[in-house]
Amino acid sequence: MDRQEGDDHAAEEEQHVGEHAEEELDAFAVSTESLLAASDDVEVEEAHGGTQSSHRLLAYSDALLSIIATVMILPVAHTKMEADEELDDNLQLLLGTKVAVYLMTFLIVTVAWAAHIRLFQVIVRIDDTLALLNLACMMLITLLPYTFSLMANFPAHVLGILLFCGCVMVIGLIQSVIVLYAFGRPFLLQHQIQSCEDRSVYRHHILKVLLRVPVMCLLAAVCSFFCYQLSYVLLALVIFLPYISQAILWCRDKLLGPAEEDPEQVMFYTFLPSEPLSKERVEAFSDGVYAIVATLLILDICEDNVPDPASVQQHFNGSLVAALRSYGSEYLAYLGSFATVGLLWFAHHSLFLQVSRATRAMGLLNTLSLAFVGGLPLAFRLTHELPLAALRDERRAVQASCVLVFGAGVFQLATWVAALQGGGRRTLRPAVRYGGPEHVFMLAKLALYPAVALAAFLLTCVLSRFSVTIFHLMEIATPLAFLLLRLMVRFASALLKHLFCPQSGQPDNGEENVQSRVAFNPLVIQ
Amino acid sequence: MDRQEGDDHAAEEEQHVGEHAEEELDAFAVSTESLLAASDDVEVEEAHGGTQSSHRLLAYSDALLSIIATVMILPVAHTKMEADEELDDNLQLLLGTKVAVYLMTFLIVTVAWAAHIRLFQVIVRIDDTLALLNLACMMLITLLPYTFSLMANFPAHVLGILLFCGCVMVIGLIQSVIVLYAFGRPFLLQHQIQSCEDRSVYRHHILKVLLRVPVMCLLAAVCSFFCYQLSYVLLALVIFLPYISQAILWCRDKLLGPAEEDPEQVMFYTFLPSEPLSKERVEAFSDGVYAIVATLLILDICEDNVPDPASVQQHFNGSLVAALRSYGSEYLAYLGSFATVGLLWFAHHSLFLQVSRATRAMGLLNTLSLAFVGGLPLAFRLTHELPLAALRDERRAVQASCVLVFGAGVFQLATWVAALQGGGRRTLRPAVRYGGPEHVFMLAKLALYPAVALAAFLLTCVLSRFSVTIFHLMEIATPLAFLLLRLMVRFASALLKHLFCPQSGQPDNGEENVQSRVAFNPLVIQ
Repeated sequence: MDRQEGDDHAAEEEQHVGEHAEEELDAFAVSTESLLAASDDVEVEEAHGGTQSSHRLLAYSDALLSIIATVMILPVAHTKMEADEELDDNLQLLLGTKVAVYLMTFLIVTVAWAAHIRLFQVIVRIDDTLALLNLACMMLITLLPYTFSLMANFPAHVLGILLFCGCVMVIGLIQSVIVLYAFGRPFLLQHQIQSCEDRSVYRHHILKVLLRVPVMCLLAAVCSFFCYQLSYVLLALVIFLPYISQAILWCRDKLLGPAEEDPEQVMFYTFLPSEPLSKERVEAFSDGVYAIVATLLILDICEDNVPDPASVQQHFNGSLVAALRSYGSEYLAYLGSFATVGLLWFAHHSLFLQVSRATRAMGLLNTLSLAFVGGLPLAFRLTHELPLAALRDERRAVQASCVLVFGAGVFQLATWVAALQGGGRRTLRPAVRYGGPEHVFMLAKLALYPAVALAAFLLTCVLSRFSVTIFHLMEIATPLAFLLLRLMVRFASALLKHLFCPQSGQPDNGEENVQSRVAFNPLVIQ
Repeated sequence: MDRQEGDDHAAEEEQHVGEHAEEELDAFAVSTESLLAASDDVEVEEAHGGTQSSHRLLAYSDALLSIIATVMILPVAHTKMEADEELDDNLQLLLGTKVAVYLMTFLIVTVAWAAHIRLFQVIVRIDDTLALLNLACMMLITLLPYTFSLMANFPAHVLGILLFCGCVMVIGLIQSVIVLYAFGRPFLLQHQIQSCEDRSVYRHHILKVLLRVPVMCLLAAVCSFFCYQLSYVLLALVIFLPYISQAILWCRDKLLGPAEEDPEQVMFYTFLPSEPLSKERVEAFSDGVYAIVATLLILDICEDNVPDPASVQQHFNGSLVAALRSYGSEYLAYLGSFATVGLLWFAHHSLFLQVSRATRAMGLLNTLSLAFVGGLPLAFRLTHELPLAALRDERRAVQASCVLVFGAGVFQLATWVAALQGGGRRTLRPAVRYGGPEHVFMLAKLALYPAVALAAFLLTCVLSRFSVTIFHLMEIATPLAFLLLRLMVRFASALLKHLFCPQSGQPDNGEENVQSRVAFNPLVIQ
């Protein structure tokens, strides 16, 4: 919260300093502003009287949730590949239950995470009781992947459904207790609700939204004794409820024209795509996913690839170098994985530095990007575990990796495009909006990985014999491309200007402005 | 940084509002203040001209480093225990290389992390080049655990030493490049160095400290060809260098009296125990360790304990319930592990909410606490994987768990005690200093786990047949104790007051103040 407010203030200052009067704040911004300005006046009270800023509790919850969301890729990645089997058979197996379990787990955890964000955008201060209740809630959420893989392995068995429904119901009940507790102590709530005359309306609305889920799970649990297929339909409804609500509201909006927004109305629990989302929490969750994905392979390498002194003596005549050489492809896969994940994080970081406010729609696209990022350990395992003889299958594995990298990159780009809706006045800083000095550069940064992945994919189709070489080139060349990107963008925009519109100097001027500002900085600050 | 500044402002406000004139800021506080006020005036420039706040880069680095530091417990925890062997043999094996590798890895990564903090307390703004250089640095740090386990498995082999030295040397060189790059662009540096006339003195000092490490590693690498024992001595010197410097300075301080501090002097790269440490980064690193430890067991459970439909048919006559019942102890271990880790996090969270400024000494004690926390997955694996017949060994395992929990808790307490040095005026908020209204309550919170672990340990010695029961009781009762703690503390202090000093009402008054303030809050804020 604090960090976000800092950003907001910075964004405001920018608007005053760097921009002109056209940048008036509209009703939406006002309501967001007041939503986020909640903890300011209670800051002095912090650490007194048992109430605390919720900042670190939320960061810890984000870390737990991002690890849990990404964990289920491990059973997929650890599926043993037999050297004498065709990859097609393995792919059948992989694309069966395990990938489905991974994707569903990711979806469920992100839905739980979105609900958690909603809840703690209303409750902005915590005390010890709330912290402990939240930890209990977290523990139950970490059990969801397990109950889900039980359901996937024993779809016709009632036990998996019952356990899953039980967990979700208890989570819903704990969250309701949290809401009741917080509304009993209004100084824990966000400013706008706190200063409202009739808080029970809000409480009623939030409880209604929260309790919808456990009630439907109870129904699903009861149904499972008669007809388990119906249970699954009900559970799918529960999971997709926020998205379905969003879609219905969006359609209604498009058909009947946008509903008149009350400027005083608080934007929460609306399921609108433009509902504000804590930018800080999106960053924390994304950081967790990127960090765990980057280190999943070193986890494996540290556990499996330290040779045993006895086996070195036996198989490699005591030569440690020869023993390590046999793991060569694993090291390469690790370096490639770390570089790719690191640079995808870097692109994400660059994007969110320029985001002043996040919305639900951006959050959804970001989650889709993260789901592809979470699949990367699988991709890199596929490319290094394959027998080098089976050329056709190797190509498949490389192509699957390209698809994953492409998906991760393209949804990052989509997040930016979503932020650019309406010129990005509500969501982006001036520098990367249409016509901003960094606009072209940001486009190049975000489009680099999708473009490279697409090119690698097409090249493997044409040059089928060099697919692994191409893939490794892609991994090694892309980091260098990031370093050269600023030069490349300036060169490309100069070329385009020269070719198409030799008189207009708009984008290049912008670039030069940036450069002169950089050089001017030390003088201004000293 | 932003968050920390927010805290600082809050702390200041508190001092103005809640405290009296005795709380003047001394020379130390002034120098810290100016150290931390660095990014304030450049905030408006953020996201312009390619320079960025380093906040998220550091959070991501902290996440990566905390995962890497904790990863090496996995090979220890996954050591297969044979049902017919004695635990003593296993303990011999465990306490041999693997635990040593875990502890040394934890130490090395935390030393690298401390160096990283030092570096980015000087460089407070980043640009794209620095972000990419930092990612390269992170990748090399994640390789350290692997080279270290090679060294542990093949101590007499030159390859492990060479790889380790190579990694450390490249890390040192990248960090030197980062320093040179940043000093070439002074607007990236912290305010005090930026406004200094002669920056080359600082650059020289920092480079000298940084390059000490690669030079010693080069020496160790050369030595390894002649006498590998000497290499190990040199490497141990490298790792313990900061601690040795600290110890020497501390001793000199005690012997010759404290050196006169120049109020204008910047407190960095001094290796003094009172050197300020970014509180935000300590929190982020601790969160990472707690989160990964809490989820390590669910990682295992999701991968290993989802029964295979075929084996359920074969071994359990198709009864899924019976199959799951055979995993019962694993679930219990998971719940116990999550609850214990969660509550240790909670105690840590409560402590650091009241910390206004962290110092190196506090950071060191906190790191020791985290090393014990990182060992908890091992403890819980020991308690649930043991054959229930071998009673004596079971007791050993439970006792080992108690020791780990005790260590984790007692070093948290020690962190607080270190913060209380000099009355805690520089490091703690008024509420938990000596005589503060929350002082007794904080003591109770931090002392709860050590006390419970000690009691459980002693009980298992006396009641050897009930050791597992006692352990489970401890796990289940302690969360409840946290909820009851406020009541318990008030009762205990009332009892103590009644017994020993029936006329003095100091601590109880404090408690009542808190209560009245809590009740008063809603009125004040509305």
